[in-house]
Amino acid sequence: VSRVLLTGASGFIGRHVTDVLLAQDHEVHAVARRAGVRRERVTWHEVDLLELGAAEGLAHSLGATELLHLAWYAAPGRFWSAPENERWIDASLRLLRAFGEAGGRRAAFAGTCAEYVWGERILRERGTPLEPATLYGACKLATHAAATAIARQLGVSLAWGRVFFLYGPGEDPGRLVSGVARGLLAGEEVPTTDGLQQRDFMHVGDVAGAFAALLAGDVTGAVNIASGEAVAVRDLVTMIAREAGALQRVRFGELPLRAGEPPVIVGDSRRLTEEVGFRPAMMLQAGIAETVAWWRERLLTEQRDGASARKNDP
Amino acid sequence: VSRVLLTGASGFIGRHVTDVLLAQDHEVHAVARRAGVRRERVTWHEVDLLELGAAEGLAHSLGATELLHLAWYAAPGRFWSAPENERWIDASLRLLRAFGEAGGRRAAFAGTCAEYVWGERILRERGTPLEPATLYGACKLATHAAATAIARQLGVSLAWGRVFFLYGPGEDPGRLVSGVARGLLAGEEVPTTDGLQQRDFMHVGDVAGAFAALLAGDVTGAVNIASGEAVAVRDLVTMIAREAGALQRVRFGELPLRAGEPPVIVGDSRRLTEEVGFRPAMMLQAGIAETVAWWRERLLTEQRDGASARKNDP
Repeated sequence: VSRVLLTGASGFIGRHVTDVLLAQDHEVHAVARRAGVRRERVTWHEVDLLELGAAEGLAHSLGATELLHLAWYAAPGRFWSAPENERWIDASLRLLRAFGEAGGRRAAFAGTCAEYVWGERILRERGTPLEPATLYGACKLATHAAATAIARQLGVSLAWGRVFFLYGPGEDPGRLVSGVARGLLAGEEVPTTDGLQQRDFMHVGDVAGAFAALLAGDVTGAVNIASGEAVAVRDLVTMIAREAGALQRVRFGELPLRAGEPPVIVGDSRRLTEEVGFRPAMMLQAGIAETVAWWRERLLTEQRDGASARKNDP
Repeated sequence: VSRVLLTGASGFIGRHVTDVLLAQDHEVHAVARRAGVRRERVTWHEVDLLELGAAEGLAHSLGATELLHLAWYAAPGRFWSAPENERWIDASLRLLRAFGEAGGRRAAFAGTCAEYVWGERILRERGTPLEPATLYGACKLATHAAATAIARQLGVSLAWGRVFFLYGPGEDPGRLVSGVARGLLAGEEVPTTDGLQQRDFMHVGDVAGAFAALLAGDVTGAVNIASGEAVAVRDLVTMIAREAGALQRVRFGELPLRAGEPPVIVGDSRRLTEEVGFRPAMMLQAGIAETVAWWRERLLTEQRDGASARKNDP
């Protein structure tokens, strides 16, 4: 049992990480601008880490031994190029320094596959050039460079989990899997790209498990949070559509790829499996089935609530 | 003629860059916490760039087309590991974004040879791994990573001049060449390391000329501001001591090397000479003679001022 400071706790990964940490008997100090669900052994701290002094106040009052830093600017679509990315460099470095100065000993931060140059087939922690094509990737890379030196100076053991593509229940519908699932279940026509690009997808529950394993271990430096498997987006969307029983309403090829999107993004997962000792448990087909089922339930609830709200309208 | 926004204008390189820019007929907007020497075509702006909003206010009010950003935390000795390095990442990124948003088109920033891994014999812009051994180097590297993406987004052409070792008139006496020159001329015994380590030294006037050339050109990315020549610190110190006529007062081997100091740090200077088209003009022997002469004059002035201050004491 240890006291874990968890930022981004109300986010997509953060909510699933909370489940994993609680299952492992940790005490969770959850940081978010607004408190999420109340649970036993979860203490919420309503803090905007972008405010000067916020990270320092939090770290010094808590004296946590472990830090899992997931918070970042994450508005779907916009996060790739929003200037907010730049502010999160400073906020993250302030947090790490305050955590280390308050006696913190182990930290895991969320990085991204977008730190790597896009174009190599398999992205490896050792060997693939770090030449981000996006502002988001560049600001994560910048954070990692400075955080590495801060951690060394303060004697904090720091792991840097590079997140690839993910999906699962509770994801913002502005993102791929959720958007397609929700749209098709709501009876809409859903335009997509041609979907020939291949990506490395991992279920959010596994991403959360990987971060918990990373934090619990002593591996330092960059670790791909990746499955090691490439799936064509077209195949993934087809899987979703079959589950939703609406293959005929997918319109492949109607959306363009974002400029510079490479044909393949897949991570070498050997550091994660061999050094951290974590293997993802969820097969893609099962994870997609679960996600589509979650959205079906969610839409039914929304419809009931909508109907009841209309009935109660004066 | 163009309007150049120059930060760190009162610093060692900044003062010499001002000379070069004025000689090239530019209008200089000099930024420093406290204004330096008044000169024609130099407008001082007393601004602390670490204050929120400072960079933005400055950039938007000036609308400069060119930015030369030299400002950083620079206290001798302390700068290698001071937390202030971390704040300069954010300050530098804010400045670049504000400059670009205000219509700025060309920027050159000061980086450092400490961004490279220590241990390779010749440090090359393309090929040498970027694995800084110091917080200073890591924070410069972080700034470069994020600045590259910001510049691309805003259409600013950005060059990154990696400064190696420098010397010349006006340097802080807390640094090597000035410290040895001043100490010996003042009649002191001067302890040094064994001096077997080799470093790439460039006269500050040439460093300033290189930055002016970098800013005037269109080369983007990292460029070593280096001579390409390694000199043993022992030979450099001997040169200074001969000029000062005090070789017998140098105590080689009395100071330890800082932990992790590599035997050789020398930069590949081909990008600077071939792509930027700049060649250093000052030979080491002549530069050292000039620097020792400058300190001799300076110490005489200090003695006169001291004597006259004592005479006028009530």
